[in-house]
Amino acid sequence: MKFRRSGRLVDMTHYLLHHPHELIPLTFFSERYEAAKSSISEDLAIIKQTFEQQGIGTLMTTPGAAGGVKFILKVLKDEAEEFIQTLCKTVANPDRLLPGGYLYLSDILGNPKMMNKVGRLFASVFADRRIDSVMTVATKGIPLAYAVAGFLDVPFVIVRRDNKVTEGSMVSINYVSGSSKRIQTMTLAKRSLKEGSNVLIVDDFMKAGGTINGMISLLAEFGANVSGIGVLVESESADERLVNEYISLIKLFDVNEKERSIQVSKGNYFDFL
Amino acid sequence: MKFRRSGRLVDMTHYLLHHPHELIPLTFFSERYEAAKSSISEDLAIIKQTFEQQGIGTLMTTPGAAGGVKFILKVLKDEAEEFIQTLCKTVANPDRLLPGGYLYLSDILGNPKMMNKVGRLFASVFADRRIDSVMTVATKGIPLAYAVAGFLDVPFVIVRRDNKVTEGSMVSINYVSGSSKRIQTMTLAKRSLKEGSNVLIVDDFMKAGGTINGMISLLAEFGANVSGIGVLVESESADERLVNEYISLIKLFDVNEKERSIQVSKGNYFDFL
Repeated sequence: MKFRRSGRLVDMTHYLLHHPHELIPLTFFSERYEAAKSSISEDLAIIKQTFEQQGIGTLMTTPGAAGGVKFILKVLKDEAEEFIQTLCKTVANPDRLLPGGYLYLSDILGNPKMMNKVGRLFASVFADRRIDSVMTVATKGIPLAYAVAGFLDVPFVIVRRDNKVTEGSMVSINYVSGSSKRIQTMTLAKRSLKEGSNVLIVDDFMKAGGTINGMISLLAEFGANVSGIGVLVESESADERLVNEYISLIKLFDVNEKERSIQVSKGNYFDFL
Repeated sequence: MKFRRSGRLVDMTHYLLHHPHELIPLTFFSERYEAAKSSISEDLAIIKQTFEQQGIGTLMTTPGAAGGVKFILKVLKDEAEEFIQTLCKTVANPDRLLPGGYLYLSDILGNPKMMNKVGRLFASVFADRRIDSVMTVATKGIPLAYAVAGFLDVPFVIVRRDNKVTEGSMVSINYVSGSSKRIQTMTLAKRSLKEGSNVLIVDDFMKAGGTINGMISLLAEFGANVSGIGVLVESESADERLVNEYISLIKLFDVNEKERSIQVSKGNYFDFL
């Protein structure tokens, strides 16, 4: 179908946004719009300029027969700063306090707009690493894993704390929860990860890091590598951190149930930009 | 910042796609681009035409002071047909067969690209209903709930089969699983749904419908209404269906473990287009 430039720009923007991190040959677009490659290159230059200027991301063009264009998501520092500020304010609301000093976060994890932002931030900071899969543990990590995996254009796998018959044969490990020192079990379907996969671990909350440590052990069982670790909220109150290198969006450093106050600050995200 | 039309088209397309079902005043765009409202209207006409032609959706413009433009997702019948065909083929792969006649679906549920498509299909077919929230049950329904909620621009809530201390006070009900006839429990955090909410229920798999029936009972406890029910895979083998009105993408009508064969067809989705 013949397109004018304006129509091409709209459709190409849509297409690129829905195919992040995927190399698209220029011929794909020139056939799709019955347009010369030179016109497509001009379109892409306009899109690239706008994406960069508006903090949407950038386009990478590879020349040659096997070449093409790739949309790379890139969040501007200002946008990250603004969003993390909002997140801090949202999390610091004393209404979130639950008995035992726990925080209610399900409304944030169940808000697709917020999770899309979180996904964009993590996909941006991990963009340069080799990642074949995103991994998390059920239940609350799942929206986060989906969001990050979607923007990185890779699948995600879910570690469970139970043994479900609908998953087939499972690999399971025992691990020691960092804060409660209890022995727990986590399992992952055997067919969900290939040997040698590069895996980004994400979770909604990290205290001592026992759960994340468990996921690292599980990856070792699969002969898979850890590409990175991303957590939405880290808690500073941990005596001893079991995990070294991780990226967090926000940090919880004081929860006072009696005075109903929650102190949060931004996490170490900006150290990695 | 001043923009040329080409740059405006790229940025507006991005903005509209990320704010589905949200009324955006024209002044928002005319201020964002320092452009006259008449130019913005022309831009929107181009975007609308391309969106409709390419099966992305449509734009609805409301005139007047309180007016603006809204991006409504709309999947073309051809796209739905093609995707559901692919899904049938994917699900019919005998490698999915697990002991007991279960099917492995986690790779589909963990594939953001496929789930985005599924989300688009459901958001499109439920676009005319009043929906304040999407609800599902942990674990495997979560990616589906996220996908649908994201395209409808509403939050999603997760019903659990356990009682988590980090959710605060919970409402729980007992229900009878349709196929195993066992009594089970499901719980939902009290603060996750407002009274009178209109809720779309989604799940990855429905046999007799016991789990979905449980969610309907749970909604009654919250004084909330069922806006609709969407399932990815329905199984025909159920003797007696506990749920009447639902929309399914695909239907499983024979799983033969001995002969390692899986028979699937498209679900009732197209009856609702």
